[in-house]
Amino acid sequence: MTQNSAHASHLILGVCDYPEHVPPDRWEHYAKQQKALGLTHVRLAEFAWSRLEPEPGAFQWQWLDQVIDILHQEDMQVVLCTPTAAPPAWLVHAHPEILAVDAQGRTRTFGSRRHYDFASSVYREHSRRITTAMARRYGRHPAVAGWQTDNEFGCHDTTRSYGPASAAAFRAWLQQKYSSLENLNAAWGNVFWSQEYTAWEQIQLPNLTVTDPNPSQVLDHARFASDMVKEFQEEQVRILRECSPGRFVTHNFMGFFADFDSHAVAACLDFASWDAYPTGLLETCSFLAEDLKHKYARTGHPDLISFNHDLYRCLKNNKQGFWVMEQQCGQVNWAPHNPLPADGAVQLWTAQAWAHGADGVSYFRWRAATMAQEVLHSGLLRHDETPDRGHLEIQQLQPRDFVPGEVPAQVALLHDAESLWLFDQQRHNQHLTYWQQVMLYYSTLRSLGVDVDVVQPGADLSAYQVVVAPALTLMSEAHAANLKKASEHAQLVFGPRTAFFTETGQAFDKGQPGSLSELLGGRLKNFDSMRPTLKEMLGGYEVTLWAESYRLQDAQALHVYESGPLAGECAVMQKGNVLTIGAHSPGLVHDLLREVALQAGVSVLDVPEGIRVSRRAGKMLVQNFNAYGVDFLGTRVPAVNFEVFEDT
Amino acid sequence: MTQNSAHASHLILGVCDYPEHVPPDRWEHYAKQQKALGLTHVRLAEFAWSRLEPEPGAFQWQWLDQVIDILHQEDMQVVLCTPTAAPPAWLVHAHPEILAVDAQGRTRTFGSRRHYDFASSVYREHSRRITTAMARRYGRHPAVAGWQTDNEFGCHDTTRSYGPASAAAFRAWLQQKYSSLENLNAAWGNVFWSQEYTAWEQIQLPNLTVTDPNPSQVLDHARFASDMVKEFQEEQVRILRECSPGRFVTHNFMGFFADFDSHAVAACLDFASWDAYPTGLLETCSFLAEDLKHKYARTGHPDLISFNHDLYRCLKNNKQGFWVMEQQCGQVNWAPHNPLPADGAVQLWTAQAWAHGADGVSYFRWRAATMAQEVLHSGLLRHDETPDRGHLEIQQLQPRDFVPGEVPAQVALLHDAESLWLFDQQRHNQHLTYWQQVMLYYSTLRSLGVDVDVVQPGADLSAYQVVVAPALTLMSEAHAANLKKASEHAQLVFGPRTAFFTETGQAFDKGQPGSLSELLGGRLKNFDSMRPTLKEMLGGYEVTLWAESYRLQDAQALHVYESGPLAGECAVMQKGNVLTIGAHSPGLVHDLLREVALQAGVSVLDVPEGIRVSRRAGKMLVQNFNAYGVDFLGTRVPAVNFEVFEDT
Amino acid sequence: MTQNSAHASHLILGVCDYPEHVPPDRWEHYAKQQKALGLTHVRLAEFAWSRLEPEPGAFQWQWLDQVIDILHQEDMQVVLCTPTAAPPAWLVHAHPEILAVDAQGRTRTFGSRRHYDFASSVYREHSRRITTAMARRYGRHPAVAGWQTDNEFGCHDTTRSYGPASAAAFRAWLQQKYSSLENLNAAWGNVFWSQEYTAWEQIQLPNLTVTDPNPSQVLDHARFASDMVKEFQEEQVRILRECSPGRFVTHNFMGFFADFDSHAVAACLDFASWDAYPTGLLETCSFLAEDLKHKYARTGHPDLISFNHDLYRCLKNNKQGFWVMEQQCGQVNWAPHNPLPADGAVQLWTAQAWAHGADGVSYFRWRAATMAQEVLHSGLLRHDETPDRGHLEIQQLQPRDFVPGEVPAQVALLHDAESLWLFDQQRHNQHLTYWQQVMLYYSTLRSLGVDVDVVQPGADLSAYQVVVAPALTLMSEAHAANLKKASEHAQLVFGPRTAFFTETGQAFDKGQPGSLSELLGGRLKNFDSMRPTLKEMLGGYEVTLWAESYRLQDAQALHVYESGPLAGECAVMQKGNVLTIGAHSPGLVHDLLREVALQAGVSVLDVPEGIRVSRRAGKMLVQNFNAYGVDFLGTRVPAVNFEVFEDT
Ligand SMILES: [Zn+2]
Ligand SMILES: [Zn+2]
Ligand SMILES: [Zn+2]
Repeated sequence: MTQNSAHASHLILGVCDYPEHVPPDRWEHYAKQQKALGLTHVRLAEFAWSRLEPEPGAFQWQWLDQVIDILHQEDMQVVLCTPTAAPPAWLVHAHPEILAVDAQGRTRTFGSRRHYDFASSVYREHSRRITTAMARRYGRHPAVAGWQTDNEFGCHDTTRSYGPASAAAFRAWLQQKYSSLENLNAAWGNVFWSQEYTAWEQIQLPNLTVTDPNPSQVLDHARFASDMVKEFQEEQVRILRECSPGRFVTHNFMGFFADFDSHAVAACLDFASWDAYPTGLLETCSFLAEDLKHKYARTGHPDLISFNHDLYRCLKNNKQGFWVMEQQCGQVNWAPHNPLPADGAVQLWTAQAWAHGADGVSYFRWRAATMAQEVLHSGLLRHDETPDRGHLEIQQLQPRDFVPGEVPAQVALLHDAESLWLFDQQRHNQHLTYWQQVMLYYSTLRSLGVDVDVVQPGADLSAYQVVVAPALTLMSEAHAANLKKASEHAQLVFGPRTAFFTETGQAFDKGQPGSLSELLGGRLKNFDSMRPTLKEMLGGYEVTLWAESYRLQDAQALHVYESGPLAGECAVMQKGNVLTIGAHSPGLVHDLLREVALQAGVSVLDVPEGIRVSRRAGKMLVQNFNAYGVDFLGTRVPAVNFEVFEDT
Repeated sequence: MTQNSAHASHLILGVCDYPEHVPPDRWEHYAKQQKALGLTHVRLAEFAWSRLEPEPGAFQWQWLDQVIDILHQEDMQVVLCTPTAAPPAWLVHAHPEILAVDAQGRTRTFGSRRHYDFASSVYREHSRRITTAMARRYGRHPAVAGWQTDNEFGCHDTTRSYGPASAAAFRAWLQQKYSSLENLNAAWGNVFWSQEYTAWEQIQLPNLTVTDPNPSQVLDHARFASDMVKEFQEEQVRILRECSPGRFVTHNFMGFFADFDSHAVAACLDFASWDAYPTGLLETCSFLAEDLKHKYARTGHPDLISFNHDLYRCLKNNKQGFWVMEQQCGQVNWAPHNPLPADGAVQLWTAQAWAHGADGVSYFRWRAATMAQEVLHSGLLRHDETPDRGHLEIQQLQPRDFVPGEVPAQVALLHDAESLWLFDQQRHNQHLTYWQQVMLYYSTLRSLGVDVDVVQPGADLSAYQVVVAPALTLMSEAHAANLKKASEHAQLVFGPRTAFFTETGQAFDKGQPGSLSELLGGRLKNFDSMRPTLKEMLGGYEVTLWAESYRLQDAQALHVYESGPLAGECAVMQKGNVLTIGAHSPGLVHDLLREVALQAGVSVLDVPEGIRVSRRAGKMLVQNFNAYGVDFLGTRVPAVNFEVFEDT
Repeated sequence: MTQNSAHASHLILGVCDYPEHVPPDRWEHYAKQQKALGLTHVRLAEFAWSRLEPEPGAFQWQWLDQVIDILHQEDMQVVLCTPTAAPPAWLVHAHPEILAVDAQGRTRTFGSRRHYDFASSVYREHSRRITTAMARRYGRHPAVAGWQTDNEFGCHDTTRSYGPASAAAFRAWLQQKYSSLENLNAAWGNVFWSQEYTAWEQIQLPNLTVTDPNPSQVLDHARFASDMVKEFQEEQVRILRECSPGRFVTHNFMGFFADFDSHAVAACLDFASWDAYPTGLLETCSFLAEDLKHKYARTGHPDLISFNHDLYRCLKNNKQGFWVMEQQCGQVNWAPHNPLPADGAVQLWTAQAWAHGADGVSYFRWRAATMAQEVLHSGLLRHDETPDRGHLEIQQLQPRDFVPGEVPAQVALLHDAESLWLFDQQRHNQHLTYWQQVMLYYSTLRSLGVDVDVVQPGADLSAYQVVVAPALTLMSEAHAANLKKASEHAQLVFGPRTAFFTETGQAFDKGQPGSLSELLGGRLKNFDSMRPTLKEMLGGYEVTLWAESYRLQDAQALHVYESGPLAGECAVMQKGNVLTIGAHSPGLVHDLLREVALQAGVSVLDVPEGIRVSRRAGKMLVQNFNAYGVDFLGTRVPAVNFEVFEDT
């Protein structure tokens, strides 16, 4: 990392602004207002391509020069964006082949944003061209603190295109990966349903097939598309590094987004950022129960938010340093309904971001847009430039309480995009998804007051006391080895469907859990994917949706099913410090994780509903997401509010 | 208006007939039966193009000559249709470019009806050609009383086509409207997301974009498509005026249909008509509560029906004269389920149409079709030619009670297609639509026994005591001035989301309610679009789905929110005779409208559930839509029945 | 029939195996294991085209030679499949015109299975070519007992293609059928909506129309598509007959599948087969109530299974002889959730198949696939080759109890694909389908312990005491005559919507029930398609969804509606031995069918819920699908189990 945000003495506050949307006579006034509010950073130029290059090659820098200079005069710092999320009309008209094609075969047209195919070499060239031009112009400007590449890669289902550019690139990628069709046919199991290829050009993208496409092909397609995003990012970052030395480079990822492998895509960045919209995240969450959506309608669900903090913190550095590049500060406009946040929510979200390791929080956006697609989205100023509710909350914030430092997590929760791709593609039960299973384990840990690092299964796990792997259904040899190594010092917990698939998306032909069976001490016997009306029992716990049983080798049965077709069979097995939980059962998972944490010496709190505890830099933040005050740890935390304690 | 239906001494009864569907030996018999039933008008030739011009240019008039002559001999009058809603196979085969394209990019093919693009110059030419031929042949026939153009413009989502004909016409329309791309880019706010155009040919129709298209573009596209319908209609009307002097020209619009601006499209007509299918309207209504759908399953909901009467009456003349061109007289076949109407429903619907200003009611259809798409739709005769239930009800009708005259409405409810387009495109809350908000106010007025004119916001409002504007979210300068003028003599009531958008679909950059803020006496502060599980309180009333608060200038706060993020803020403001209601709350709206009506000297009745009162020509019709008798105003009105009183 | 399975002394047990999916070193071991389990038949080569002909014309028989020889050495018999359900990549790449096009106009691509248009002459040629090659190679091999053509015709909505091959073939088919466009226009009622054709090339496939296509066209299109499947099958069967004398030929149909007329498609076979997946059938059933889906989640619903047994048994021979070619033996992977079957379910299903006339039951599949689309589908062996639950159940089966012989059904239930096509295309009530209405009558009969033959309305009905026609909405003259003939000796029962449509899909222009009105003794008066919240009463019975009333000629009214618009009108009419039930009312249907059976001398049992009784070959099978034991006929039948009695 270079001139990084982490060097600040406390949490950086910033704002996303679009000066090109307002008359120039507002610019200086806004800069002074922003400074007066305690903001130090302004993100600029996102989507500004049509203003920076109105005609091919005819750049217009003056307006942006002026904006940056005004901010510089106020001692504000700037985060500049490459504007590639919105190629202008003239470029699309000249090169319609850069447009993506959706899975239904329809070309996705100009008129909104993200209308490009990551694999298009024509678009790649223009991406490098505009990045170079901007980086040369502003890369060494003293006000420029860093860069954001593009905006929200993959938003609106744009990671994967099904047009000619991607088709050709996919075939090239496959040729590179497999060398021979013999290898590819074996890896995909193409003997099944006569899918064997005898020439590379026979291979199509896996859309519009008569019934489900080959899951191994779909897996490789997801990997390919992820690689295209990675390449796209790397091309921009390489240019920024060269032309803008000493500035940080980040990208603003999205919550619960895994169409590409964000760990790989973030590898070339200084730190990761994400865009936090707690109420939108809640309303569009596919697995949160309706009563919880109601309860947290005006604050968002604490764990939906913090999971993403913990994930993006750990993409680059598992102890601190990420940014919330866009932080909701009023109501959003894109969920089915968009309630106003509760009083205090913007402060609570800001504090929570800090406690989970954020070094910067940049509110979206300065003034509510008066034009085009987002006029019903709030900003810190209303359309009429009066300060909106979020503005007033930020005025009362004390960011100096939010000092930098490490998040002292002793528990690692493993997340793996490739496992997600396979798990959700082959759910077997439409009511149970990868995220749902992961979040059951994550929320349980959080309800026990435990700080969690969300890391990749290939990460260095040596510092953790407990490693929880809720849904690693794809198991590579390397990951298996890493887990085995972790078992030498940590408690390990595995969830259902662990190690079902090989690296190529086939079932282990020696059965499950494949290469982990020695570590776990048993083998998968049967799995039961229950309709939601079914319930089976196990030691007083209810099991729904999924039940797996094991044939023990040298593990012991901790729990045995008591009803249903698996009655009498092992539901939870333990081999030394390795625990495998085959049943989907929130109560059981809670009690088992509590036990494991205690055994591992991780301290545990019984945190009331709606309360969350997070630690950073020697402090403990107690957050109350309830609409009522709660007495906890000897203090009363008011509704939608927080307290900062010294962590003792 | 010329030889208008309004000259009749009482309600005209007619029927829609398709003699080309039955053997010629039935024609004379049917004419005599129709006359015996008291019908005086027969609508003919709708969809008859393939019989009138079986081969290009080879017209076959004999059969229609004969049908009209037979009716003429029985002193029956004829309403002739231009058959353009169903271009024949030979025309489509010769000119596939007339076919429309749907929003998904699929060409909509021959094999049903309405398979044309309103913007196709080729189809326009054929429309004028067949209209001219028919008008010359029959325009001066003594039996021909009038004309219906085409059939149900826009039905089956056909207002907007996304093919080449419309794309080219849209660009031409924009060029005409904006003169320069600079103007267009400013009007659409294209600086947002780099949407600026630098050449006219870059502009596409707003479909298949990656995410939401630009709302201002969508608004202009809706206006363009509406204009194409208007031009299409005007071309036919011009020919009919020339070749068929003294005959009325109308078009049969549809209930709750606003894909085009029906006010503009009706401008060249003598009077408007609409097609009333009360049970279908109920079953396909997106906002009516399930318990009300159950209660009114066999009668339709009274307000869903009468709203359209009031709307179509006021399209041309706000006191009388429209027709119900197709009146349901048995079960329909096109809703998800199609119950039989209750005994008496056909009589009740006929009386209600009269009381709301209809001069003609034409039942659909004479004999149930034995062939093709509508065989499960009833008629006055069954397939076997026995009189069906509706026939028997009409036999007992006394149309002589239904005399012409004015509907004495003192209250205007404002409806604006452009506001609907913006409101529903940018709902912010999927559970609240434009029609839903409008119908809350309309139904409330009707439950108070108030007669209502549904008029455009630009209409002459000088005759009204009360003007209610539930959802005028787009506010032009002209409309603002008209409302200001109305405030000089009338009580004004505004609903939530008033004047949010400018004429080009942007948010007012001085904030809301834009140019109305002086009139209303306050400014919009915040809006809260609640998930359906949320409820906030306000003076004992429940607020759901939408809550707006105001910053008062010189208005007074009538009500203040008592819970939620807006607690303590103004929910209802009053400045003199102008009332603004920011909360979606049926109870509150009821009590406020009742108060306003009384203050304005509009008499109010507390009408029981299922009862409706309507006045016309000095008479008062009391309608009972309940399945049980009700005592009201000293009389017992039987179930599904009505009484006519002198209006005192 | 030739060397038929029916010659076996007891129920044949077999398995579907894919030796090409596993290393050759497993083949001999598997054969011995299969034999040890009591299996005598192995189905092979389904989808094996890419292994049999890896390059055009370059056949590779060695591997299959070896597999068949190994099985032959173990005295096992082989069922060979033509591999045409999965044309290989090289063929699709060389001839993309064989691909089907879906109703949305999208080409359905390579990458799964069934990617062909049945009407493609190019694909037909390749189908004959590969069939000839296989039949010549293996047709006289002593181990080859018979053939399965292709696999599950029509699966994944593949019966109907909307591409050029089908469009051209459809026009040719119509020309052949109607000779003149005058005939076609009359048959389809094309005068309606100006749909008349003046040249054959104007006729398109009935997709992507603006609103509903012409139902008569849709009916003919369904007939055409069905004929294409029939021709496809016949071409293969002709070759197999010639090259593989003495071997049976069958096809594996699917449950509740009627996109084509399976009776016609099966005409050239020796016997029919079907693929029985009871839990999948239950989960994907559109009409089974949620509480029954819960109750039978682990066994499937007995009547959903046995209806298909009774249907496929009667396709060729209404007393015995069909096969279950694929029998579920663990959990499936293709329903929204896929619970494990209860202990005993595989045995219960096997016994039930036998009792309903099966001569062979072949489990799907030997070893669970480790690759591609079906890895989450179970087999008799797990991925790790351990015997799965189904394997253990089959070990304990006594197939020798299951002797061949006739199913002594005295009651015929009439099923007609053409009626289904019309009924479901023009439902009038989205909550009531053809299958739902048929299954109400079928399940009622089964709950009375009655054995049922499911036969075509044109079948020889002379042997039946009772003929039940729940939903014959299309009534040809020939069927009407056959029913009249049946009435000379049998009790006849008709359900609602009987004989509404003529053979061309028009309504009878003399009214309903068309040519059956003399037989039934009355005429249809009105039908009421109720929303689900409505209920009307009739003699203590509740009527929902559908109510028809009749005008009596010489029938008598057995029941009269007591509420609703049809109050006082006839709901059930009887003319001698012909009963017509106009009301959708499970209680009424139960009591009427019970009465009719008793009158006809068919013995009736009041069978408890979850219990079913079936008779074959002088034996009676009592099946318990409940999760608890039941005392019945003096014995206790344990949960998910059965007893075989002598039928006295
Ligand atoms: Zn909702
Ligand atoms: Zn419904
Ligand atoms: Zn489900």
